[in-house]
Amino acid sequence: MRPGAIVIPISQDVRHSNEYSPDLLADRLMKLFGAGGDAIEHDLTVERRLSAIIQDFFGMARVSTDVQVRSLNEMFNNSRIPSAPADVEGYIDDLYEKVIRHSINTSSPRYVGHMTAGVPHFVWSLGKLITALNQNVVKSETSKSFTPVERQSLAMIHRLVYDFSDAFYDGHTQNRNSTLGIMTSGGTLANITALWCARNSLLRPVRNFRGVENQGLPAALKHYGFKGAVVIGSSLMHYSLSKAADVLGIGAANLIKIPAGPDGRINLPALEKAVAECRSRDLKIIAIVGIAGTTDTGAIDPLPQMADIARRGRIHFHVDAAWGGPFLFSNEHQHKLAGIQRADSVTIDGHKQMYLPMGTGMLLLRDPGAARFIEKHARYIVRPGSVDLGRRSLEGSRSAGALFLHAALHVIGREGYGLLIDEGMRRAKYLADAVKFRPQFELLALPQLNILVYRYIPEQLRAKARTKDLTRSENLRINQINTRLQKLQRNAGRSFVSRTTLDTTCYGSDTPIVALRAIVANPLTTEADIDLVLNEQALIASNLSRT
Amino acid sequence: MRPGAIVIPISQDVRHSNEYSPDLLADRLMKLFGAGGDAIEHDLTVERRLSAIIQDFFGMARVSTDVQVRSLNEMFNNSRIPSAPADVEGYIDDLYEKVIRHSINTSSPRYVGHMTAGVPHFVWSLGKLITALNQNVVKSETSKSFTPVERQSLAMIHRLVYDFSDAFYDGHTQNRNSTLGIMTSGGTLANITALWCARNSLLRPVRNFRGVENQGLPAALKHYGFKGAVVIGSSLMHYSLSKAADVLGIGAANLIKIPAGPDGRINLPALEKAVAECRSRDLKIIAIVGIAGTTDTGAIDPLPQMADIARRGRIHFHVDAAWGGPFLFSNEHQHKLAGIQRADSVTIDGHKQMYLPMGTGMLLLRDPGAARFIEKHARYIVRPGSVDLGRRSLEGSRSAGALFLHAALHVIGREGYGLLIDEGMRRAKYLADAVKFRPQFELLALPQLNILVYRYIPEQLRAKARTKDLTRSENLRINQINTRLQKLQRNAGRSFVSRTTLDTTCYGSDTPIVALRAIVANPLTTEADIDLVLNEQALIASNLSRT
Repeated sequence: MRPGAIVIPISQDVRHSNEYSPDLLADRLMKLFGAGGDAIEHDLTVERRLSAIIQDFFGMARVSTDVQVRSLNEMFNNSRIPSAPADVEGYIDDLYEKVIRHSINTSSPRYVGHMTAGVPHFVWSLGKLITALNQNVVKSETSKSFTPVERQSLAMIHRLVYDFSDAFYDGHTQNRNSTLGIMTSGGTLANITALWCARNSLLRPVRNFRGVENQGLPAALKHYGFKGAVVIGSSLMHYSLSKAADVLGIGAANLIKIPAGPDGRINLPALEKAVAECRSRDLKIIAIVGIAGTTDTGAIDPLPQMADIARRGRIHFHVDAAWGGPFLFSNEHQHKLAGIQRADSVTIDGHKQMYLPMGTGMLLLRDPGAARFIEKHARYIVRPGSVDLGRRSLEGSRSAGALFLHAALHVIGREGYGLLIDEGMRRAKYLADAVKFRPQFELLALPQLNILVYRYIPEQLRAKARTKDLTRSENLRINQINTRLQKLQRNAGRSFVSRTTLDTTCYGSDTPIVALRAIVANPLTTEADIDLVLNEQALIASNLSRT
Repeated sequence: MRPGAIVIPISQDVRHSNEYSPDLLADRLMKLFGAGGDAIEHDLTVERRLSAIIQDFFGMARVSTDVQVRSLNEMFNNSRIPSAPADVEGYIDDLYEKVIRHSINTSSPRYVGHMTAGVPHFVWSLGKLITALNQNVVKSETSKSFTPVERQSLAMIHRLVYDFSDAFYDGHTQNRNSTLGIMTSGGTLANITALWCARNSLLRPVRNFRGVENQGLPAALKHYGFKGAVVIGSSLMHYSLSKAADVLGIGAANLIKIPAGPDGRINLPALEKAVAECRSRDLKIIAIVGIAGTTDTGAIDPLPQMADIARRGRIHFHVDAAWGGPFLFSNEHQHKLAGIQRADSVTIDGHKQMYLPMGTGMLLLRDPGAARFIEKHARYIVRPGSVDLGRRSLEGSRSAGALFLHAALHVIGREGYGLLIDEGMRRAKYLADAVKFRPQFELLALPQLNILVYRYIPEQLRAKARTKDLTRSENLRINQINTRLQKLQRNAGRSFVSRTTLDTTCYGSDTPIVALRAIVANPLTTEADIDLVLNEQALIASNLSRT
């Protein structure tokens, strides 16, 4: 699609026939659902076409076309549902032209800007399998064998984090009344579920009071004699924690954000002070949240010290390791996550550094009984004492996506994941060195995990940047250039890094610093790709500074 | 797998090699991620094997094997992550033997017990496509063209429900500041999101108060002068509404359940009385919930009258049409949902009667600005004013699963869906007649949608059942027989209906009645299949009564 070309809404030019009699329509529909010989052949046709499209798409190193979002939007403005059925083949041809070509090649070795990457190709067909079998793990009656598969996968990740005894896992892995973990559609739901469990456990039922679960938060605080509820973590917490505080009735403003230092880690004395203050003000601390890999820069909070503070205060300690969790696979780097095993709950995203498809969020629970305070029942399913996973989860009906996790744990294995992590760190170091080597760029934080923040500095300001003597207005000008640079690189579609705004640099929290943010996780990214990304940025920026 | 056969945990007998050198391991991993010629060939091998497995599995009419859950659990007890990588092929062979064979054939024409059914086979390969492309619609930078595709799909369903003007849809379909709907992983999250929007809108920011979103529920109620918050609906609300009330800090006990009548519909005078009482007690009514298709029996609440009550009280009116929504496609049956277009928000599940894979939940919003009260931002993504869908959603990272919906709206079309609904109703009527015709069975409610509840009556009690003269203890005995019957039929694996417990029968709410629950939605289910299901039940039960 060329920019400016005339575009036709997809739902109008797909070949629709208006000449279906009811019988023909019924016949056609039965073919879509049928599992006979026709169906097999049809499936193979569709399969071949889509496989060719996928191969073609991944054949390009580019990130996307240079067609802009605005032109794409115009193609999808029709809000009328087509009346008669369209050809599958015609639909797929259209899909390729109008959608797939203009999607993001998350597998591109030059797409190093977000926590979303390509997936190993053995999971592609598992995606088809999961779609076709359409199991629903909310209950055993709609998933049967996939229920123990999910439980086993979660037990394996639980063991990676907590490493309890054989006896512990023998007793809990397939025990219907134990919850070692909960699969969620993503880290956001995992974080919400963690705080939900913590809230309901801390404000649990007692004599004459049926708990926050039943009576609600206002009544619970009143019953327990608190003036409010809070959650405490660093200022770099993922925005899903604000969402959690909002949803759970705690209020986003009661998510107390302790400033992070220039290293991106929470300030421990400030944390201790906040805990003491909340106590003196009769505020119930629902949880302390530690971060193992901030979204901004990959920094890791001092988990052991935070665990100490939480334990002393008998406060739930949650660790958001959505990004950093898989560093546990690496013998070389797992020490960075020391203390995570002392968390009451841990979020890890399979669709980030475990290279699995979207939708593979996980919450791990130290106490297999912790989720009993969120348990719900119904008369048609998830009856008390049943094996149904839906008894204890925020979501209801869910796919058997845990199979992706199960397969990857076997096909990649612990050593394989360890190597992937080590390689990612090696490439991140290469990028850090490459940034430092180039006079055009300034590294904004030393990388703790494989996330790098840096920025372009125009030539005339480089000397002042080196000595950290830039004025506020110079920094704001540099911000504008970097914002523009990131957008131009993105819109050209050849390579991609993201951007963020830091307030933890040496210029202080008053001077927000726009940063280019690179996430180096794709195993296919080479040193040459990294050079290419930086060279492209330098070129775009030098043109920019000149104008 | 024969019952009682010796089983080996899957993670031990998959062929693992311990002899990988780091170089060999790296080489192997690169092959898993690579997109070159080797990768294509490997993908095709995996693809062919899995396709054969899928075809083989769907070739059986049975629902599952007769292997019991307990034996399956024993196969998945190992909690150690395999150290070295396993063969993909070996893993898949094992997967077939230990998992897939013992999963549930949701496409079986004799699986008529849950809201989970088979999917049309053109979506199988779309599942592969979505998995391979691994877009993340939380933001445009990780999904680009898939963002407008999701918006268009939701606009189409919005139009199906609300049917506003062309000008309305022209102005909102691709408008970044409009939210016609939100895709969710399922109906549970859609219901939670609906009440979250309602709560945050009703207790919104005003001068000197930053709203429930920021200040939390206790402070919000205090500021607005309420003694508590409630949600009101019928006693047959889905259990996700209890979850929502719990999560949102309202409390599950403050979900006021108005008794449903024998027809499964909410008692309107009781609803009006509850509304008045809440007002007189200074309780804030967050929402009135109407049901379009109860999970138990498919009953539809009197939506127009409920809309009137909600409007008079300026209360958010939410309709949970997770099951019933697609009846809007049917010219013959859409009248049953009259009044739904007056709802402020509507839940519809694509993975129920739209025959899409798990994960296709939807919340439709009458007011395109209603979701602004749940909006969240971060500095790396979902910045204010951005096109990113993640600004307004409970979930963060999400797959491009909306493509399933988009494809089906085109490939099945409005008429196709209408026909599928009509046919489902025709088959439900056949089942109702077949139940009435057989003296062994008692129909427990006249079907409003395609869900039927009935039960087996032992011979000696049939006369009393006909005249509704069964005593409480006789009913409890019949309950035991039906519970046992349902379990035996399920465990045998040849066919399946679910069971529930009704307290809305002529025997009153004191006598819970165990019901067999059939959901007739699978387009492949024939009248012969229905007869087979009933005959099998009659046979099992007659053996049971005799012992």
